[in-house]
Amino acid sequence: MSHHSVPKQVHRLWSPDHEPVLEVEDGDTVSFDLTEATDGQFDPTSTVEAVAGFDWDRVYPLAGPIMVKDAEPGDVLEVEFLELRSVDWGWTAVLPGLGLLTEDFPEAHLHLWDLTTGDTANFLDVADIPIRPFCGVVGVCPDVTEPQSVLPPGHFGGNVDCKDLVVGTKLYLPVQVPGARLSLGDPHAAQGDGELCVSAIEASLSGAARIRLHKGRRIPAPQFETTGPLHTDTARAGHYATMGVAPDLMRAAQDATRAMIDHLGTHYGLAPIDAYVLCSVAVDLRITEVVDAPNWIVTAHLPKAILRAR
Amino acid sequence: MSHHSVPKQVHRLWSPDHEPVLEVEDGDTVSFDLTEATDGQFDPTSTVEAVAGFDWDRVYPLAGPIMVKDAEPGDVLEVEFLELRSVDWGWTAVLPGLGLLTEDFPEAHLHLWDLTTGDTANFLDVADIPIRPFCGVVGVCPDVTEPQSVLPPGHFGGNVDCKDLVVGTKLYLPVQVPGARLSLGDPHAAQGDGELCVSAIEASLSGAARIRLHKGRRIPAPQFETTGPLHTDTARAGHYATMGVAPDLMRAAQDATRAMIDHLGTHYGLAPIDAYVLCSVAVDLRITEVVDAPNWIVTAHLPKAILRAR
Repeated sequence: MSHHSVPKQVHRLWSPDHEPVLEVEDGDTVSFDLTEATDGQFDPTSTVEAVAGFDWDRVYPLAGPIMVKDAEPGDVLEVEFLELRSVDWGWTAVLPGLGLLTEDFPEAHLHLWDLTTGDTANFLDVADIPIRPFCGVVGVCPDVTEPQSVLPPGHFGGNVDCKDLVVGTKLYLPVQVPGARLSLGDPHAAQGDGELCVSAIEASLSGAARIRLHKGRRIPAPQFETTGPLHTDTARAGHYATMGVAPDLMRAAQDATRAMIDHLGTHYGLAPIDAYVLCSVAVDLRITEVVDAPNWIVTAHLPKAILRAR
Repeated sequence: MSHHSVPKQVHRLWSPDHEPVLEVEDGDTVSFDLTEATDGQFDPTSTVEAVAGFDWDRVYPLAGPIMVKDAEPGDVLEVEFLELRSVDWGWTAVLPGLGLLTEDFPEAHLHLWDLTTGDTANFLDVADIPIRPFCGVVGVCPDVTEPQSVLPPGHFGGNVDCKDLVVGTKLYLPVQVPGARLSLGDPHAAQGDGELCVSAIEASLSGAARIRLHKGRRIPAPQFETTGPLHTDTARAGHYATMGVAPDLMRAAQDATRAMIDHLGTHYGLAPIDAYVLCSVAVDLRITEVVDAPNWIVTAHLPKAILRAR
């Protein structure tokens, strides 16, 4: 079993035609440096003008593809995260036309984060967001004939934006093409379940992972396994939770989020756009019930421990 | 502040015309005995035949309505759960035509639970389900002109089936009609987020709650507040999680659940129908991302601590 450094060369679309940057074997480890999703178009001095002017063609620079020896469609690739360290600043943006509440928030917005303050990041002196780095994009290459955008995730993984893929978690991906062609990117320092405003605390990171190959273990889409309770410290003071009740899960998710934004405004004095940003990085969406026809319930959960005393 | 016992008289539809069983004031406490959702049509000797023959008109016997002095539309009623104790047996049924996976599971099924064994209930010698009693139905009366079925929840609450409404949790309900007209029912001993097969561990319970009135505090739908981490003990060994990736959240929820049922079959030897029941009482659905158009992700989370060593 060997250790490899993933070369800096990146790609920006899913395609089995990219030149591999590395070949590894079952049990090998890799270390990597991942640049935040805009590929350096934002920096710690950026203003909201940077959002309007930015070049979508540079989004999602992915490290890879990494070839895995003997991997074939019908196998499962395991990626166990061993180390993940964010850099010292990050950003969260509202991008017009994207996000759960595009109609409520039509204007661009940019929030910058100071990540030099240890385990948490201060948000407007209202909340302290625990830093829990993970890769928003982890995927094997889909079996596509035309290059495919990285934005939508798929059964191959990719832009899954799953906040539980922290150090210790094992992610399982169904191999789609020979060699698996693993890539990683879209590094996040913190995020809530849902990634509601379309961005997390976006921050470049360095990390390492162990790669294993499970021959002939078929799964239909990504699965993962955590080693213990991931969010106990934020749950220590309980949650404040707002329900959305509607005959459509998307509408229920929107209504739950709107109610949480109102709650954060009323009780913590946050402007709606700031509350939306806070929801994206720290509030979790859960499906409370999906069987009491015709109305389903999605609930937004805010961990009270992250809020400063009023 | 006074304590009241809620009389046994029940109602089965939402209507502001029901005769109140009690009137309380802000700060009063109430104790109640709630019969399981079929109103005694199942018992510890029931077989699956009882599912086919049962009378839907007797479903959801609700305790109440309880009038709250001075409550008016535009106020919020708080219900703080002080005590909740399940009886010594329960049931979980798959009812044809209901549930998240109606097409996969067209046949009726009934599972009976022994709840005499302390803090957990044995499931087929495969898992031990932690007992956490709560009321599936807690609602103020909706402002309806015709009597309304209890099955769908609404902005008034009702059949919200929220597993976090355990002892210590404060539920906030937006008052819809004068006097609030609070009712409770559908007692559950345990459930996962989603209530996937359409029933929880359904078990009669006794309990008590404190009722408070917040004048002029408007909320659009139910909200609640927990006192601390509710599920730390089940999270202690981490989770196994399966993703559903689809352009529709309902489809993503179904796919995530199907993948979990396959996982429980492959690794724990459970028949699909038994795995479906286990999902309903112990697996949680979360929305992982809802912004990476056009594909959303719902993830089913199984707490590994409930599973017995293989």
